[in-house]
Amino acid sequence: MAHIALPEGLAGITSGFAFRPETAKPMRELAEVLLRGPNTLTSGEREMIAAFVSSRNDCHFCQASHSAAAAHHLSGNYDIVEAVKRDYESAPVSAKLKALLTIAGRVQQGGKNVTTADVDRARREGATDTEIHDAVLIAAAFCMFNRYVDGLATLTPTDAAAYDQMGQRMATQGYVQRS
Amino acid sequence: MAHIALPEGLAGITSGFAFRPETAKPMRELAEVLLRGPNTLTSGEREMIAAFVSSRNDCHFCQASHSAAAAHHLSGNYDIVEAVKRDYESAPVSAKLKALLTIAGRVQQGGKNVTTADVDRARREGATDTEIHDAVLIAAAFCMFNRYVDGLATLTPTDAAAYDQMGQRMATQGYVQRS
Repeated sequence: MAHIALPEGLAGITSGFAFRPETAKPMRELAEVLLRGPNTLTSGEREMIAAFVSSRNDCHFCQASHSAAAAHHLSGNYDIVEAVKRDYESAPVSAKLKALLTIAGRVQQGGKNVTTADVDRARREGATDTEIHDAVLIAAAFCMFNRYVDGLATLTPTDAAAYDQMGQRMATQGYVQRS
Repeated sequence: MAHIALPEGLAGITSGFAFRPETAKPMRELAEVLLRGPNTLTSGEREMIAAFVSSRNDCHFCQASHSAAAAHHLSGNYDIVEAVKRDYESAPVSAKLKALLTIAGRVQQGGKNVTTADVDRARREGATDTEIHDAVLIAAAFCMFNRYVDGLATLTPTDAAAYDQMGQRMATQGYVQRS
């Protein structure tokens, strides 16, 4: 049961968003810019960073829904996403994304853990400053989203099909509510 | 030196905001709603939660600037803020705020650490569901802001007077840029 009286029938972060629309608005906008805004990283790559960090934070709702969103950006390929979460260095993704996942993993542990060597590696693999910035901020933002979802003890579906549907909606319609 | 080419002469989060205005906008709005929006918690109380979490995350820029913002909301009283960061249970703040700081401290470690006993204590001390929600989200949001600031290795002033000025501006003018 959730720690506070969240609207019934809503899962994960959507219940917190419905409870407090004033804070939901900028949080939704941040997710939209970071994961679906114009970028040289694909939405699939950015959603994999989000899923990876959420997995490291052990937030089932976020890791499952963003894994599904990533998969829907990648022609339904869940295998890549699972490989990234399990061991990204051996996953079938670009050397650049591996370097950015390393940075994201450091940020998940704490901002000061990012080293010059981590950033040098990313740059050597072709990452731009904006891509490095976004890897840092996606990781930081999911340290917020994950804590919000679990800190309120929101409802966590266990049904994989529910996350697949969510991921499809996130990948196609995005994060901002259209009125 | 910062990990990426941030605009020169800007300190802490403001350099990240100037580098990437698209993500700065929702992040500024979130800070404004959480710390200065209409609320039954005072801005002084909310800034103390922000400073406390930033201190636990060892983010000097955020803890010093939000300590100063809190102090400016509290008639310049830095002693209360320092006492909260040092040992909030013995600090001269309300029993309700102590309970909310306990929740914020749990969230800083990870969302799943918040217990029913923590929430019961807050409720017993008079906290509303919205106040509990906001304590969770302020803590979660500063786990993002702190990681963003340190993950980019932004410029960190060491001069206390610089933070006092920042805090005054944050307390009086807020977080959203007026055009």
